[in-house]
Amino acid sequence: MKFNVKSSLSYNVNGPTTFIFNIHALNTSSQTVLEENLTIDPAINHDVFTAHDGRSKFMRLKIQEPCNFSMSYSAIVDMSYKIIDENNSENLVSVVELDSYIASFLYPSRYCQSDKLMKFSFKEFGHYATVYDKVLAITEWIYNNIEYTSGSTDSQTSAIDTITERVGVCRDFAHLGIALCRALSIPARYFTGYAYQLNPPDFHACFEAISMAIGLYLIRLN
Amino acid sequence: MKFNVKSSLSYNVNGPTTFIFNIHALNTSSQTVLEENLTIDPAINHDVFTAHDGRSKFMRLKIQEPCNFSMSYSAIVDMSYKIIDENNSENLVSVVELDSYIASFLYPSRYCQSDKLMKFSFKEFGHYATVYDKVLAITEWIYNNIEYTSGSTDSQTSAIDTITERVGVCRDFAHLGIALCRALSIPARYFTGYAYQLNPPDFHACFEAISMAIGLYLIRLN
Amino acid sequence: MKFNVKSSLSYNVNGPTTFIFNIHALNTSSQTVLEENLTIDPAINHDVFTAHDGRSKFMRLKIQEPCNFSMSYSAIVDMSYKIIDENNSENLVSVVELDSYIASFLYPSRYCQSDKLMKFSFKEFGHYATVYDKVLAITEWIYNNIEYTSGSTDSQTSAIDTITERVGVCRDFAHLGIALCRALSIPARYFTGYAYQLNPPDFHACFEAISMAIGLYLIRLN
Amino acid sequence: MKFNVKSSLSYNVNGPTTFIFNIHALNTSSQTVLEENLTIDPAINHDVFTAHDGRSKFMRLKIQEPCNFSMSYSAIVDMSYKIIDENNSENLVSVVELDSYIASFLYPSRYCQSDKLMKFSFKEFGHYATVYDKVLAITEWIYNNIEYTSGSTDSQTSAIDTITERVGVCRDFAHLGIALCRALSIPARYFTGYAYQLNPPDFHACFEAISMAIGLYLIRLN
Repeated sequence: MKFNVKSSLSYNVNGPTTFIFNIHALNTSSQTVLEENLTIDPAINHDVFTAHDGRSKFMRLKIQEPCNFSMSYSAIVDMSYKIIDENNSENLVSVVELDSYIASFLYPSRYCQSDKLMKFSFKEFGHYATVYDKVLAITEWIYNNIEYTSGSTDSQTSAIDTITERVGVCRDFAHLGIALCRALSIPARYFTGYAYQLNPPDFHACFEAISMAIGLYLIRLN
Repeated sequence: MKFNVKSSLSYNVNGPTTFIFNIHALNTSSQTVLEENLTIDPAINHDVFTAHDGRSKFMRLKIQEPCNFSMSYSAIVDMSYKIIDENNSENLVSVVELDSYIASFLYPSRYCQSDKLMKFSFKEFGHYATVYDKVLAITEWIYNNIEYTSGSTDSQTSAIDTITERVGVCRDFAHLGIALCRALSIPARYFTGYAYQLNPPDFHACFEAISMAIGLYLIRLN
Repeated sequence: MKFNVKSSLSYNVNGPTTFIFNIHALNTSSQTVLEENLTIDPAINHDVFTAHDGRSKFMRLKIQEPCNFSMSYSAIVDMSYKIIDENNSENLVSVVELDSYIASFLYPSRYCQSDKLMKFSFKEFGHYATVYDKVLAITEWIYNNIEYTSGSTDSQTSAIDTITERVGVCRDFAHLGIALCRALSIPARYFTGYAYQLNPPDFHACFEAISMAIGLYLIRLN
Repeated sequence: MKFNVKSSLSYNVNGPTTFIFNIHALNTSSQTVLEENLTIDPAINHDVFTAHDGRSKFMRLKIQEPCNFSMSYSAIVDMSYKIIDENNSENLVSVVELDSYIASFLYPSRYCQSDKLMKFSFKEFGHYATVYDKVLAITEWIYNNIEYTSGSTDSQTSAIDTITERVGVCRDFAHLGIALCRALSIPARYFTGYAYQLNPPDFHACFEAISMAIGLYLIRLN
């Protein structure tokens, strides 16, 4: 299934600074970038680098003088996906076999203090038989217990705030989902997607639990 | 029903300081202090004052020199109690009719950040018909969801920590119960009791929701 | 010196609720209310009660149906004040002699977690000789170290947030000042004032340290 | 300069689990591991992997049955070091030129919430001319303002707690130093060292600010 994605950004810059953007579509086994195009107006030197996994692309711009600039990125991506056979979902990799890179997604982080949520997560989700069922139960719990309220949170809001105050936006839902997974030793990480048919169009925060790539919203929207 | 209560305390004091003790048994409509006796050895000047409600007694000792002292308090109290008729429990006072003194137990406090727990408390307990049922549901929820682990918390632990980390001692259970009540506009406050047959004997933290005086542990033990 | 103060408020009420207002000017030894006038339009039943100190007036309105109402309060107050002789300021009451009512302003509270700021407050302010000098140093420290930024904080912001993030509004400045005083065993409390020549006119958050009544902003503005 | 380092650990394991150890000495341009020896008794299968930088070694053990085991690691390392010429210290790499791997040490993390300390760090340290001087000032500020008290903190203590409560151990000092560096866009990270002549011998928490490798304690001890 092919998608056209596009984002346009513009900035007024008051002084020398460095921007790091993460807007490039990902190239993975289930998502092929067929075409992509980036324009910066006026042209500004930049370099593109990849994160630890060798796939997530970041673009870095160095601004030396106050200026205005705008940027436009568009791509055509072809996505394939695999329906997980629920009855066969537990041929999963245990922690001890994990690639060391993936093991790093077990640690608590700034917005996902999984170390504080271990008792809660074990009590609520620990009894599900498979990792697949646990992650599914976590996304359902979030959907049922956290209220979506635009503007209710900010850049300092973390999983602890969200589980306490029971309100947030997609970013907060994703942080909480990650924290609850990690509390169960399920590696999980955040990603930002171009959300299909989201209106108004915007980047959308999701999380994926490793080896299953269940996006919170894919589940919620269906 | 009569109880003998007793507490013995001893201190090594290294420099000038002021102690404020709250060990006197309360004299209320349902608890009469028949006899009480306090000895401080060696004798130290002190005064006894009552808190805002005119009933809770506090004793203040001024120590001016390094010293050792011990203190012993004993009392005989006669308790009467009334079984609440559950079917008739909702002849309760609404917030707007509350005595202004009691209204002060609606506010969030250092250990009971009820302002952060409003959505949670409404969702979990808001649908119960009466205040009595709400408070009962709160104490049951705490009993079922928070693990009692001696030494797991300290003097900085608050209701937010307890609802997140799901572990604590009686003090933390009481703080959380108070916060959840206040979040529903039910005035509630902390008290310390001489717990009957607690072994080893110790002061015991409880909370009471106003106009009903349901102690967390009375419910838990039955 | 006489002041005319006035406040006008209006509300759209969507359902039954109870309001508690604290807009009456205080009657104290240094402030006499010569005249005051309150109108509620349309007329709504209300009662006025005083807080623990017998002086702060609160007004409670019970709304039973959705409605719109407006309220206007005006008063003429005569203020006298005493210039504190700094050289003679230490004929102050020590904690052990404090009235029990005032002792309650030594405790940490929801927005003033003085228990977490003891080391900081002792290190920064403990060496000043008198309570007067300590409070003065606290207000100066806040003025020099916390940035005033309108809209930077909200109803959940507490002294801990403010001392960490170094930004806030008058409410946050007052909470931090109170916490730093209490950490030094100086009773302190919050009050809201009609600020003289504040533009636009608004209620103004201040704090007073007991037995001296030094308002943060009186100092800041001079 | 050559050092012999050694660590011995023993565990009683009650059920199946996975251990991840980080006890191997690092091989870098300024530290050469001449010899190293690891014994696990009884022998247990394990694999050694490196973290993102390709140098930090982690060892993973899979335990399948309850058991007791002990482990001993020893190494001879040869350290060389370069005295930084303070007058020439500012031929440093700016953020925009940083290797992408190093850029990841600019982000806030679980224990180093640099996003909350930006105003403080800029005000206290932003005026120093060079990165070297800034990091030096940060370590001195920590040394002068945070009290070292063994046992005062635990595995949940973060930089925010430490800057507020002003007490901690080496781990907390390092977390705070990292947070203050990152708040100034100086990449910084945590490391654990074999501390020379620490008595009793123990692993020691330090931090290094990238491109300068200034350990907190090297400075403190000299």
